[in-house]
Amino acid sequence: MSLPDSVRLFEMSPRDGLQNESGTLVPTATKISLIERLADAGMTHIEAASFVSPKWVPQMGDASDVMTGIRRKEGVVYSALTPNLKGLEGAIAANVEEVAVFAAASEAFSQKNINCSIAESLQRFEPVMARASEAGVRVRGYVSCVLGCPYEGDIEPERVAEVAKALLDLGCYEISLGDTIGVGTPLKAKRMLEAVNRQVPMGQLAAHFHDTYGQALANLYAVLEEGISVIDASTAGLGGCPYAKGASGNVATEDVLYLLEGLGINTGIDLQAVIDTGYWITAELGRTPGSRVAQAKGPCHA
Amino acid sequence: MSLPDSVRLFEMSPRDGLQNESGTLVPTATKISLIERLADAGMTHIEAASFVSPKWVPQMGDASDVMTGIRRKEGVVYSALTPNLKGLEGAIAANVEEVAVFAAASEAFSQKNINCSIAESLQRFEPVMARASEAGVRVRGYVSCVLGCPYEGDIEPERVAEVAKALLDLGCYEISLGDTIGVGTPLKAKRMLEAVNRQVPMGQLAAHFHDTYGQALANLYAVLEEGISVIDASTAGLGGCPYAKGASGNVATEDVLYLLEGLGINTGIDLQAVIDTGYWITAELGRTPGSRVAQAKGPCHA
Repeated sequence: MSLPDSVRLFEMSPRDGLQNESGTLVPTATKISLIERLADAGMTHIEAASFVSPKWVPQMGDASDVMTGIRRKEGVVYSALTPNLKGLEGAIAANVEEVAVFAAASEAFSQKNINCSIAESLQRFEPVMARASEAGVRVRGYVSCVLGCPYEGDIEPERVAEVAKALLDLGCYEISLGDTIGVGTPLKAKRMLEAVNRQVPMGQLAAHFHDTYGQALANLYAVLEEGISVIDASTAGLGGCPYAKGASGNVATEDVLYLLEGLGINTGIDLQAVIDTGYWITAELGRTPGSRVAQAKGPCHA
Repeated sequence: MSLPDSVRLFEMSPRDGLQNESGTLVPTATKISLIERLADAGMTHIEAASFVSPKWVPQMGDASDVMTGIRRKEGVVYSALTPNLKGLEGAIAANVEEVAVFAAASEAFSQKNINCSIAESLQRFEPVMARASEAGVRVRGYVSCVLGCPYEGDIEPERVAEVAKALLDLGCYEISLGDTIGVGTPLKAKRMLEAVNRQVPMGQLAAHFHDTYGQALANLYAVLEEGISVIDASTAGLGGCPYAKGASGNVATEDVLYLLEGLGINTGIDLQAVIDTGYWITAELGRTPGSRVAQAKGPCHA
């Protein structure tokens, strides 16, 4: 049990964050500015948009404009969520170099969220993976509900491992394990990761934890001890929890960076720049950052 | 590194919580009701009041009325903070069976907070300890700034160990290690605890962590792994951080209980009853609970 020397942070706020913000649509120029500020803060992986039907997710209707509008920075990967072939084609047309697909570890969640079984959802990814491979686009896989489901409750770690392995076998280069409703605690997170790691190498796994119950940092510390070195987070904790009104969703990038700095783990990211970006974007949304570190440190007034 | 089977929770909200709440004075009857509700939720250790000069802390001017007004429950310890002999006499007169004294691990904090050096503060406790012993009153010791000081920055773990040992030698039955400004992270917490544990047995130590930077649960998980089995917390996260406006202070009892339940650690406390108490007291104060678990679960409407 030794901690990694460095961690790669995967920033979620432009996509997972803004997608789950209620209220009015965020202007395309604001999204582009957010992504550019995050890259300038030192982030190397940013999920920038989602190529889904604007009928279902109107917040992401400008995915193409966002992806083609950003000033690309050397060494930064700007990825997009593409749930189907149509989305992937849109992403390829917008010059996206990395996309992501998602499956649930919970049968009930899969049915309620995307109207098909887990097996069917994996099957639907086959043409997506083939086309991505042909176009030279890398694919990341998300598994949701890895530590619990709003409908089923507890999820067997072996179930998570099966789905993660299936995504790996389909060709995903990395599998991000999502505690979608934030119900996990450290030992459960460890046991889940151990089960998954029997099927998928640790170097191809990422932790995507939500802070709904305030447990995200404790859980991250526990899986860092197990060898996780890729962490998903969202600046200012953008993206509420759609399953608990008023509760927080994504763990805040600022809080994760503070933890990692305290553990002596390098990320290459400037914490104060992220704090300032969080104050800026939440001001645009008419609120304040959902990050305790941001609240404690405050914005830079220099 | 194995986790304890059970943890004793030391509830801080009636004293540390309400003392640091700004705004109007909380009525004595409300304080008494809070303490009784917490005891009914299964808490066995409650810091109920502070016998300090009402000139300095007007919020605690009714300490005697609170301590004599509560319906005492079998098996529950109702303690009070007594910074000096006068406070102790007041506590003894009010039939208090356990009191607490505090010292800082930071010289600058000691000077700014209580206007004397660490050594002087310890010396001042000598008559307090003698009188407490004579009256058969147990004394708990707090050490503040164990993971950092708002004036000095980092604090050497050895410094914390010295102060903890001094309080032990003075006769304190338990030493509570306070991350007063919530700046700690897990490895720092572990290293601090290891240093203290070379001077004080683990069974006489408690963790008193603040959540100002969102790190409290991660830090608690780390010290639980080291053998800590007494944790201080405050329902609804009552008690802001006096050193960072708008930021949180005490870690919320609800969040700690959720963590412990998830780790399979027994406390004997009913989480939902604490959540409901948190909603009740914060409504009295005109706000909502500063606990993510409370926000996610909501109050019981049964």
